[in-house]
Amino acid sequence: MDKIEVLEVKQQIIEDNDSAAASVREKLKAKNVFLVNLMASPGAGKTTFLTRTINAIKDEYRIGVMEADVDSDVDARTIAETGARVIQIHTGGSCHMDAYMTEQGIDALAMDDVDVVFLENVGNLVCPAEFDVGAAKKVMILSVPEGDDKPLKYPLMFSVSDLLLINKIDTLPVFDFDMDALKERVKELNPDMKVLPVSALTGEGFDAWISWLKNQIKEWRA
Amino acid sequence: MDKIEVLEVKQQIIEDNDSAAASVREKLKAKNVFLVNLMASPGAGKTTFLTRTINAIKDEYRIGVMEADVDSDVDARTIAETGARVIQIHTGGSCHMDAYMTEQGIDALAMDDVDVVFLENVGNLVCPAEFDVGAAKKVMILSVPEGDDKPLKYPLMFSVSDLLLINKIDTLPVFDFDMDALKERVKELNPDMKVLPVSALTGEGFDAWISWLKNQIKEWRA
Repeated sequence: MDKIEVLEVKQQIIEDNDSAAASVREKLKAKNVFLVNLMASPGAGKTTFLTRTINAIKDEYRIGVMEADVDSDVDARTIAETGARVIQIHTGGSCHMDAYMTEQGIDALAMDDVDVVFLENVGNLVCPAEFDVGAAKKVMILSVPEGDDKPLKYPLMFSVSDLLLINKIDTLPVFDFDMDALKERVKELNPDMKVLPVSALTGEGFDAWISWLKNQIKEWRA
Repeated sequence: MDKIEVLEVKQQIIEDNDSAAASVREKLKAKNVFLVNLMASPGAGKTTFLTRTINAIKDEYRIGVMEADVDSDVDARTIAETGARVIQIHTGGSCHMDAYMTEQGIDALAMDDVDVVFLENVGNLVCPAEFDVGAAKKVMILSVPEGDDKPLKYPLMFSVSDLLLINKIDTLPVFDFDMDALKERVKELNPDMKVLPVSALTGEGFDAWISWLKNQIKEWRA
């Protein structure tokens, strides 16, 4: 396998992350690149989810992936097997990506070579919610084993996201997870957010997710 | 049910968290109070685990619990049903507890009324690992659905903990989780750390955990 490119991002205290994010978004828009900020807990299944997603759309779009982690490149290696262009970002201990770090990532990816970029943010439901990275859309994954009470405990993440994917629905029979209660809690925080149940393992629900994604890409490019 | 006491902790940038933690630890030692810093991802089962643990030892010790969360008091309500003295700490958006916040919590709990205190830290594998809160022992919970690759991605948490509990082992049949691979990865980071598989749902493995805990309390008081 090719060597994984590892980017140790520089950090700086950004006085105005929102402005930096707006500038990243403009840059991406100018290049017609659609960036998804993918956020979830550790172990929610982000990498398996991404692998299946890339395989579903790679004939249509050129895909780039930024794998953000405190350490290791295991996820980047998994993603590289799909043939997508991937870089591993090491956050230098930081619990989230910000717009400044994201800009370094997209520069390293080379915007002329990709149509759709996924940022797999650090596994964390608190910090990443606070930082706009300049993505076109924020997508959150919650997995069934984590429980249906998470909107009560991590409200900001649910409030700022554009789409909520409930992953690992193949394990619903072994967990006490109340999908209706979850949806009610989400609705109180973010009435317009779409909730899509999926299984990255079996592929269940992926048609709806891929269709949502393609519509968003179309809108972004319009 | 009694009203849950909610403590909105004050935050300050601590120049030397380690000194503050040492001072918390001395204070607890002087009062013979054993503090456990319990850390895990969101949804790893900390609260169910604590409930079963408290029920197993509450005849022998007076238990206090500090539930740290960005928001909500759902966990504190669950814990209060055990009869333990519990306070809900709201971290004001912070992704972790530090020694200064912990000191406010133990002052609110009243040290003369408790023998063993559990701090349920914010669900997060990154930030809490960086802050010594002054606990006698750091206990980490990793749950089977999160996967056996987590030591590669969150090495600091595995390095600083004194005990690793692998929770939700009742779900091992439905997940691709390699316990031996996990133990090997943990060993490289923290050769002396004990790893105990448990199920907070069924109680499997709890004898070993409770026995470890009681030994540690005995040593702390010696």
